[in-house]
Amino acid sequence: MQKNISERIILGIDPGTNILGYSVIEQKGKDIRLIEMDVLKLGKIEDMSTRMKELFDCIINIIDKYHPDTLAIEAPFFGKNVQSMLKLGRAQGLCIAAAFSRSMPFMEYSPRKIKQSITGNGAASKEQVAIMLQRTLKFEEMPKYLDATDALAVAVCHAYQKDIIIENTENPKKKGRQSSSWTAFLSNNPDKVL
Amino acid sequence: MQKNISERIILGIDPGTNILGYSVIEQKGKDIRLIEMDVLKLGKIEDMSTRMKELFDCIINIIDKYHPDTLAIEAPFFGKNVQSMLKLGRAQGLCIAAAFSRSMPFMEYSPRKIKQSITGNGAASKEQVAIMLQRTLKFEEMPKYLDATDALAVAVCHAYQKDIIIENTENPKKKGRQSSSWTAFLSNNPDKVL
Repeated sequence: MQKNISERIILGIDPGTNILGYSVIEQKGKDIRLIEMDVLKLGKIEDMSTRMKELFDCIINIIDKYHPDTLAIEAPFFGKNVQSMLKLGRAQGLCIAAAFSRSMPFMEYSPRKIKQSITGNGAASKEQVAIMLQRTLKFEEMPKYLDATDALAVAVCHAYQKDIIIENTENPKKKGRQSSSWTAFLSNNPDKVL
Repeated sequence: MQKNISERIILGIDPGTNILGYSVIEQKGKDIRLIEMDVLKLGKIEDMSTRMKELFDCIINIIDKYHPDTLAIEAPFFGKNVQSMLKLGRAQGLCIAAAFSRSMPFMEYSPRKIKQSITGNGAASKEQVAIMLQRTLKFEEMPKYLDATDALAVAVCHAYQKDIIIENTENPKKKGRQSSSWTAFLSNNPDKVL
């Protein structure tokens, strides 16, 4: 089923092995609609193997429910200790692999880039980002966890990237082609990410 | 197809985003046979997104070719910088997700545990491990990259774990059950891994 190129579903993820934020938005031209925004609480699962399985299965379920066109993921912020980075890397790898297993491309955005896209200020606080998103997407209740709004922020950041819409126009979604499409985009636009 | 419980195929992986070692062995009772051992050279792929896709696709292809019962993976050695740990975590996450997407359980072993299992000495060098593996599995040519023998070492380490064979006997392979099987094993044997 070929979607209209001006319509797309974006899955946004703020990866983590304790709490993982996710969001699903629908973009029709300039309109963005929030479909779902929540967190997976994984910290209670003591065994890391089971936790990783749960994380992977949940992301697969979300993908199979909404059939997003792209995964937009927040790049970890460097500066944490090596053990935290390993866990974050694993969480990222699991989310990205879930997208790959459903032939979805992914885009990664730095926290600074995301904040800049949403608020116009790369050094904005998480709370400022959340308030701006609430105004723009008009959701009534602020989520309990900022990981959820962080995940929404990365999805909306991706929706705001005009170049990517053009890129999608030139390379309509075909199984196995997205990766080279992103590759081309990345090599042509090295300044756009991270 | 229910396999004889004394027969199993093990996929061993030494994860990395530059060079990834992998091996496939067949275990029949006490006999272990080398099926394949090689490396994926990913360092030449400059775009990290394409590299991750290549890594994931290659692991999926290996799984679909040999239908291993378990993934045995080497746990990263802490002490590298945060950026290296993130990359290693991603590589691990991608490999583990590839196993999950084919309903395979995974086991993780520390470098020390692997060396101990193969040579009897947890502080053995990679070369000593490779030589012991060559004697045991009787392969003629030593691989060019030690990442390949490292991957073989983790697979053979898993094959040597007697408790896991008993565990498999109690919980024959069923889709969606392996994870809880490993969970039970891990909670009963916290000293066995890492």
